[in-house]
Amino acid sequence: MLAEIITIGDEILIGQIVDTNSAWMAQKLNQQGIRVKQISSVSDDKQHILNALTEAATRADIIFITGGLGPTKDDITKQTLAEYFNVKLVLNEDALNNVFNIFKRYNRPMLDVNRKQAEVPENCEVILNNNGTAPGMWFNTGGKIYVSMPGVPFEMMYMMEDTVIPKLKASLKLPVIIHKTILTVGEGESYLAEKIADIENDLPHNIKLAYLPKMGQVRLRLSAYGNGEASLQDKLEEFAGRIAERVGHNVVALEDTPLEKVVLNYMQERGLKLSAAESCTGGYISHLLTQHAGSSAVFLGSAITYDNRIKEKIAGVNHQTLETFGAVSEQTAREMAEGVLSRFGTDYSIAVTGIAGPGGGSEDKPVGTVWIAAAKANKTVAKKFTFGNKRMQNIERSAVAAFFMLITLLKES
Amino acid sequence: MLAEIITIGDEILIGQIVDTNSAWMAQKLNQQGIRVKQISSVSDDKQHILNALTEAATRADIIFITGGLGPTKDDITKQTLAEYFNVKLVLNEDALNNVFNIFKRYNRPMLDVNRKQAEVPENCEVILNNNGTAPGMWFNTGGKIYVSMPGVPFEMMYMMEDTVIPKLKASLKLPVIIHKTILTVGEGESYLAEKIADIENDLPHNIKLAYLPKMGQVRLRLSAYGNGEASLQDKLEEFAGRIAERVGHNVVALEDTPLEKVVLNYMQERGLKLSAAESCTGGYISHLLTQHAGSSAVFLGSAITYDNRIKEKIAGVNHQTLETFGAVSEQTAREMAEGVLSRFGTDYSIAVTGIAGPGGGSEDKPVGTVWIAAAKANKTVAKKFTFGNKRMQNIERSAVAAFFMLITLLKES
Repeated sequence: MLAEIITIGDEILIGQIVDTNSAWMAQKLNQQGIRVKQISSVSDDKQHILNALTEAATRADIIFITGGLGPTKDDITKQTLAEYFNVKLVLNEDALNNVFNIFKRYNRPMLDVNRKQAEVPENCEVILNNNGTAPGMWFNTGGKIYVSMPGVPFEMMYMMEDTVIPKLKASLKLPVIIHKTILTVGEGESYLAEKIADIENDLPHNIKLAYLPKMGQVRLRLSAYGNGEASLQDKLEEFAGRIAERVGHNVVALEDTPLEKVVLNYMQERGLKLSAAESCTGGYISHLLTQHAGSSAVFLGSAITYDNRIKEKIAGVNHQTLETFGAVSEQTAREMAEGVLSRFGTDYSIAVTGIAGPGGGSEDKPVGTVWIAAAKANKTVAKKFTFGNKRMQNIERSAVAAFFMLITLLKES
Repeated sequence: MLAEIITIGDEILIGQIVDTNSAWMAQKLNQQGIRVKQISSVSDDKQHILNALTEAATRADIIFITGGLGPTKDDITKQTLAEYFNVKLVLNEDALNNVFNIFKRYNRPMLDVNRKQAEVPENCEVILNNNGTAPGMWFNTGGKIYVSMPGVPFEMMYMMEDTVIPKLKASLKLPVIIHKTILTVGEGESYLAEKIADIENDLPHNIKLAYLPKMGQVRLRLSAYGNGEASLQDKLEEFAGRIAERVGHNVVALEDTPLEKVVLNYMQERGLKLSAAESCTGGYISHLLTQHAGSSAVFLGSAITYDNRIKEKIAGVNHQTLETFGAVSEQTAREMAEGVLSRFGTDYSIAVTGIAGPGGGSEDKPVGTVWIAAAKANKTVAKKFTFGNKRMQNIERSAVAAFFMLITLLKES
């Protein structure tokens, strides 16, 4: 089953935004056994959109269209779809109610342009937008399915997960594809590949292994294709087990979970509490934890100690330590971790202090030097890392390394 | 002058990587007055690439191709280009020297597949790759320019800046496109559109206005096309000025800057320091600030006070306040802001406390209820917001609202 994605909007073509929607959609579709043949970004131009639709329909069975559904003049996707299908725009009552309710909820006057958002081509089924005023649209015509959704990522994502994917599963005969992911931290993909080469060679032809590296983590994804979900599942589990055993302590989860969620789940099951002291990660670790619902059961809070005085005052680092060893040092990292452990009254803590860059490096401590510590009641561990010279990468890699250090400390107990 | 970008490689189509190259290239090209008409991502498949090239050539004057130049079997861009132009592959001495030198530098044996990387279609000019083994290629044929580059971002970027853009400027008479962006916060796009409808109607045909909404912010982007950069710039400034005046205090910047960077720039210019107390945003505000290099000149740190005891102990909220009014209340927000203002010793502070969801709501305080406060020495302001029921969205919108409240307080002074 082949799909194409057409994203509409000049903001992508002038490079103002990066199209992250397409990759997300492609991933979700792949999991359902739908292959994306082409992704095209086109301008808010009627003829251009019409051509893109016509071309896509020659290659694919399902065509996803995102963007161009806003209330303003430059949004012309709906009118263009109506012209493409040679139908009229009609007011849809459900969509109108949705717009009406949204304006009511926010206590805002509803304008004429907003009412127009409830108009859709008459041959479509409306996909309700729980997060915005623009309805999604599902067309099934000429043996092809067309799905038009807003370009706003969270509106599109909810529509895909809530409505579009279930509807695709119900209306198409899709092959069975099941996946099993092993999350590893701390080793590169070539090292892992060498370590499990013989297991990989043993894989049957309908099970594929992909290495998905990302910022100090490698996800090993096994995908099984075919019929008979139960037996595919058994085979997958067997190989996942063999790989996990071989890779050893670098395996942190046997599922496709964000690393920080592995921490939260593990600690919640054991009733353990966590705090953090962040310098160069500047809140990123806390943000990763608190983006997950229910994180408050584990995470009590943290001190973002960007300035040295705050390291002393809030995290309890000794003035003398900072004077003698500097902010980026083993001693400071340890005192930060121990400081929040006691002041925040948690069972475990992590602390990060380093030079994210691009400024602030020295010969002794170049940009990318990061000290990380993890602490519990009677033990603190600390380790120095030397990452690269990219600020955001240093922040992300520090967070990954800190969570891995914490997981290792947790599992010792 | 129109361009198209074709990215080749299955990793984009299965969603394994997000195509960031195209946005980067589009930005660079726009600055040179080259408009990108379409971006297409296609698979490592000969016929598919040939079709994409043929289609692009019907629409554009310049076709950029990235990816598919690696040494492995699935990389077929060069062979496909040779077939497209109906020419042979020949060994290029400069490219071979480059490959040879790279292997020498890393002390690695050069393999036959690497030597093959120096083969190029005979009708191309080679673009030397200073950062890798795959040469870039420049074709000028049939009145069109084709540029093929590696998909590795920094290899492509270096080639674009060092060779391709100077070569384009030298060989083409390029028109001018200039953009001017107005960043607004706090009003939706339909409201803004209605407010400036008459100004939008006054726009000459060569100036376009786009509304780019994102999480409580709307960017208004004016784009002017034509000749004579100075007069276009004057026209843009004139309309930007009229729009900014009409929109009023919702305008926070007359440039395309992230909102938190507006805060950092404004405060740094005035030597002001900032701290934060975050409950439901859980570190997101701190992370937004500290992702920017140089943020330490303004931002001293923050207290992530997820738990109520931490709100008391670290941010200095009174136990009685929490008992009487609850954690999500005007009083708590105010005390959080005032607490970190004094404890962190900053000129300004912001505080956020709310129910991000999906759990924790009540009839009185449903999910999405957020109290935000901003404080300076003699004044604290606080406001209640009612966002939606999506956790991540509540976090992002809270951050935007907090920065907007801070900017408003800053500008009062």
